[in-house]
Formats: sequence, structure tokens, C-alpha cells
Amino acid sequence: MSDSAYQFPHRRYNPLRRQWVLISPHRTQRPWQGEVNPSSGFSDVHYDPICYLCPGNERAGGHRTPRYESVFIFDNDYAALLPDSPAPQTAGMLPLLRAEQERGICRVLCFHPDHSLTVAVMDEPDILRVVEAWVEQYKELSANPSISHVQIFENRGAMMGASNPHPHCQVWATEHVPDEPAIETESLKAYQAEHGSCLLCDYLKTETDQRTRIICENDEFLVLVPWWAVWPFETLVLAKKHVGSMAEFSAAQRAALANILKQVTTRYDNLFETSFPYTMGFHQTPCDGEQHPEWHFHAHYYPPLLRSATVRKFMVGFEMLGMPQRDITPESAAERLRALSATHFTRK
Amino acid sequence: MSDSAYQFPHRRYNPLRRQWVLISPHRTQRPWQGEVNPSSGFSDVHYDPICYLCPGNERAGGHRTPRYESVFIFDNDYAALLPDSPAPQTAGMLPLLRAEQERGICRVLCFHPDHSLTVAVMDEPDILRVVEAWVEQYKELSANPSISHVQIFENRGAMMGASNPHPHCQVWATEHVPDEPAIETESLKAYQAEHGSCLLCDYLKTETDQRTRIICENDEFLVLVPWWAVWPFETLVLAKKHVGSMAEFSAAQRAALANILKQVTTRYDNLFETSFPYTMGFHQTPCDGEQHPEWHFHAHYYPPLLRSATVRKFMVGFEMLGMPQRDITPESAAERLRALSATHFTRK
Ligand SMILES: O=P(O)(O)O[C@H]1O[C@H](CO)[C@@H](O)[C@H](O)[C@H]1O
Ligand SMILES: O=P(O)(O)O[C@H]1O[C@H](CO)[C@@H](O)[C@H](O)[C@H]1O
Repeated sequence: MSDSAYQFPHRRYNPLRRQWVLISPHRTQRPWQGEVNPSSGFSDVHYDPICYLCPGNERAGGHRTPRYESVFIFDNDYAALLPDSPAPQTAGMLPLLRAEQERGICRVLCFHPDHSLTVAVMDEPDILRVVEAWVEQYKELSANPSISHVQIFENRGAMMGASNPHPHCQVWATEHVPDEPAIETESLKAYQAEHGSCLLCDYLKTETDQRTRIICENDEFLVLVPWWAVWPFETLVLAKKHVGSMAEFSAAQRAALANILKQVTTRYDNLFETSFPYTMGFHQTPCDGEQHPEWHFHAHYYPPLLRSATVRKFMVGFEMLGMPQRDITPESAAERLRALSATHFTRK
Repeated sequence: MSDSAYQFPHRRYNPLRRQWVLISPHRTQRPWQGEVNPSSGFSDVHYDPICYLCPGNERAGGHRTPRYESVFIFDNDYAALLPDSPAPQTAGMLPLLRAEQERGICRVLCFHPDHSLTVAVMDEPDILRVVEAWVEQYKELSANPSISHVQIFENRGAMMGASNPHPHCQVWATEHVPDEPAIETESLKAYQAEHGSCLLCDYLKTETDQRTRIICENDEFLVLVPWWAVWPFETLVLAKKHVGSMAEFSAAQRAALANILKQVTTRYDNLFETSFPYTMGFHQTPCDGEQHPEWHFHAHYYPPLLRSATVRKFMVGFEMLGMPQRDITPESAAERLRALSATHFTRK
């Protein structure tokens, strides 16, 4: 299945998300008189006096960020979810105006005291400390009986809506399983019922056989541009073993996760020699009180850039009203990412 | 059902899209050290020599845009879809690597020769000419036996990925019904089967009774911020009569559509006194050869702005990995839009 076999518009199916994506290679040749974003260079500010995530600085509501030395976790001062929000009045609620209570917990997890860092340029032992903190967060929050799902995610870069450039991620734990992991749960369950095997284990095997979409790997994880990728350089980080969540990781898997995240972000930065923006997050076993033998741990990276460090892909018009559309094949995106150095361009 | 009844996090259900949205009022109070876009001011360039959509200018591939005086329609020089793209090789295709042929037609429809205009500041008779052109496009393309769906959409403003600021929209006609209208079709059908009535007719009645989410209207159309709006100032333009597509519009409905589009875009521009960016498009009866008595014509406006003319809402992190989340209630968004003048701020 060579790349040239797909050099014309076609659509591909995402069996995990149950969605089609339109692939239109060569569209990137069109002239661009649209938006050009500033390129995200690296900062050399290690401590920013106005950053509320830097050690020792003041936050909202009279809180102060302590002089932390490794990771630092706190409840979001502007939480989108609250542990005790009341239920909406449902008495007299009309069938087409449906609302439900949604309680939850929102936390911020600072990766490192140094304001200038990103995962791509952090040392692996420091990333491992972040992984260990994620595992603890997932364990603690998933044991909370009023929580059904724990979403750990990172918005990296102003282009991806990060409201603060300090290296950090967020944890939003919710009373209900949100739509995205709920759809994945359904797909994984249905596949297992039909085939007696795991959708992502079988997919991993297919990709390992073909190798055309694989970017990098280590003993425990594989990174690839999925067959059904929506974003130009979207990747999927798959656990090689069938494991549902971080809580079940061995020490080797935790270290391997730190290693693979550094590998993939390094290649991203090297692609356009910039601090590559992205949204990323983990999908893992919901904690809704049910058994989930079907779940297979993975991470999604959704980066916006398409043409260069300054021109992004816009998921607008046809994408919002019709279906997602991409301008390069997943195979060519994988080829470009695979060919890049494993060493960060600023460290050579 | 007063607005204050919803001043805490909760989730709402979208029965058309079958999706939940998390509503977190007060989140906009958080500090913003993130991206600030340039505000989109109005242009006073009526003719731009380097714009390939301005009359008389050269386009890609040796084409030339004629000296048009009203609307001008042509096949996209960089079409995402082609009428004759071959089928992907399906022989030996693996079950998790599913691809399908997707043929189609992509057109560009210039609204007016004047480079500086937008729908909000065009004269109503000129907008009516655009409506008439849409009706013709829909009729022609939906009669094509290899087309199952006609998507008319406009990306307005650099922030919304418009690759050229000249007033124009696009028409993408596809062999398959794309996912978004396919989901709406399923929802409309299931509702009709269950209730013997139309989901959107019933919703229109609910909103007309409550009035809290209505922004403006005329004899044929109603504009509201839907109960389940995802974008801060998202609106839904509903036909008051149960009509499936533009092809069935009376002359009065065509004129009323021109009028309502000017009304809604004027209010948008007045909100932050800027040329308000958005993606908008029409959802109407698919042309897949089946009967669709369930279909009810409507338009969606998805505008990105949240706080001001320069700070947008980012649908990233939790939204991409979990579920959509909004920072103000639909009721307060509607209240703000409703309170604005119906006259464009530049014309006072
Ligand atoms: O067709 P244009 O204006 O070049 O491109 C714009 O609209 C398309 C259809 O929504 C999108 O796929 C592109 O990402 C966007 O930049
Ligand atoms: O929480 P932050 O960094 O202030 O905000 C960012 O992430 C949130 C969660 O994905 C989004 O809802 C916001 O739109 C985005 O700007």
C-alpha cells in the first residue's frame, strides 16, 4: 500500500471515533492570503515575575504558588467544574431543553519551576516526575465515587489556547464520562464483542506489519500517524501491551512513557524548527464503577500546524458543517516526522 | 427559567447533533496571558490588484476572473474534491484501514465585485442575488446523480481560516452525505418516528414560548442562541415553516433569508464593533435519492470570539479530548446580541 496509491481525494474511517475524514492531497498548493500566526520561539525567561505559575508568585483569590522544585499541583482558581455545583431545576423541564448536573474537579499541574521549559526540552528524569504525578492524580481521582472520568490534557502554545506559557497541564475529572471517551468506550466494547480481541491491539499489529505510518517507538509505546488522522501531523501514542490505565503501569512503562513523550515532541519541534503547538491528552479506563476490560491506554496529539511554523490548518467551514478534511496524506505526514532527527534542534 | 437558574456548571444536550456540552459560567473571569489576535477592521480597498477574486484578475492555472458585476461562480482551482477521482484500491484492504471513494464538486461563489464588502454591510438586494445563486447551485448540484449532499458555507475572517478576504462562500458537493448532516438526518428521522412531529418545529415552538434565547426574526426566519450552543455567540437560523431546502423557497422566503442574514451579521459586527469572524453554512435536505420529509432548513453560525474583538474561545484540550465546553450561558449570549442595534455601527 504505497503512498502514491492515495494521491487523490478519498475518505477514511476512524473506527475508534466512528467518524469519516476527507483526505485531499495537494490542497496545500493553493495560495494562502489568510492568517499568519507568529512563530512560537523558545523563551529564555526562566522566571517571569507576572506568571502566576512561577514559584513564589501570587495567584488569583489571594493564593500564592509555593517555591516548588519539581511538579506542583493545585485546584484551578477558575475551575470549569465544581465538586458541589447544584443540580439544574429539572421540574417542568421541556424534553428539548435537557440539562444535567455536572460536578467535578479541575486541577493544574505545573511540570517544572522553570518557566522556559517544554516537554521537548525537559530532561527525561523530570518528565518521569510528571508521569508519576499523573499516575497519582489518576489513582486518587478515579477512586472518588462521584467521579466517572479523569481527563489529563495539555494545551501547548498560544496558538492552541494555552492561557499561560509556563509548562503545565490540566486535569478535569467529571461526574459523567464525556462524549469523546464515551464514544471510544462504545467502539472498543463493540469490537471486543464482535471479534473477541481489542481494537487497538489489532490496529497496533496492522500498523507494525505495514510500518508506513509509524514514527518512533520504544519497548512499551508506539507512535504513529493514524490511518484516520484529522490534523495534519496528528499522532497516536499506543501502549504496546493491552493495559487500560496509568494506574496499572509498571515502573518500566512509566519510564517508557516519559521517554516516548520526549521523542514525539522533539520530532514535532524539529519539523518546523519551532516550539511546536499542540493539544495532547490521555484516554484511559473510565472510573464509572464498571469493569472495562476493553480499554487500551493511548494518547492523542492534535497539533494545528500545516504549512510552516506560522500557517496552521483551520478546521472551519466544511469541517464544522460537514466532516473533517485534511490536506496531506497520513502516510506523507508520517514519512516527514519519521525522517527527522531524534535530537532537539536547539541541542545540536 | 431565568438566566440566574443556570449560573453554575452543568451540561446540556443537543438532540440534533446528539452531543453534550459543558457550560461553565464565570470562567471568563480568569486571567488571559494567551493569544490576542489582531482585530478585523473594515477594509476600504474596493479593488485589490493581487486578489484573485477581484474582477479582471488572474487566478491559478492561467484562469482569469471576469469583470463580473453581481455574483460570480467558478470551480475551485484547488478543489478538495474532484468529479472523477478514482476509487482507492480496496482489494486486500484490512478491516481497520477502511477507505472509500469520494467524488465531488467544489465551487467558489463571489458575493460581490467590491473587495471591501461583507454580508453585514452589503445592501439587501445584493444579498438577495447571492441567495438566488445559492438556490440555483443547490438545485443544479442536487439534481446530479453522483452527488448526495450540497454543503454551502462561508468562512469569514482570517481568524476563521478564510484564505482570501474577498466576500465569497464555497459550495462542496459530495458523493456521500458527510457526518454532520448525516447525524442530523438520523436525529430528525428518529424524532419524527417517535413523536410524529418535526424536532425543529417543536424546538421553534419551545423557543418562541420562552423567548429568552431569541435574538431577532422576520416573517419567515427566527434567529436564536440554541439551548445547546457550543461557541460563545453561536446562533441557529430556523425557517419558521417546515421546509426542507432552498429549492422549495417562495420568493418571500428568499427575500426574508437575505434580510435575516443581514440582521444577524449586523448584530455580530455591533457586538465588538469589528468585522465579526465566523463560519456559517446551511443544512438542508440531502440529495441522496431518498425521501426526506423530516428535514427542516436551517443555518448554523459558529463564531470564534469570546471576550472581545481580539480574544477568541479555543476549542482545545478538554474540548477535543472530552467534550465541548462554553464559558457563558446561551441565555446571556442571547441577551447581549438581542440588546444590540439593528443598524450597523459604521452606518450610524
Ligand atoms: O478553501 P479555503 O478558503 O482555501 O480554506 C478554508 O476552508 C476550507 C474548507 O472549510 C478548509 O479546509 C481550510 O482549512 C480553510 O483554510
Ligand atoms: O484553562 P485555560 O488554559 O485557561 O484555557 C484553555 O483550556 C481550556 C480547556 O481545554 C479551554 O476551555 C479554553 O478555551 C482554553 O483557552
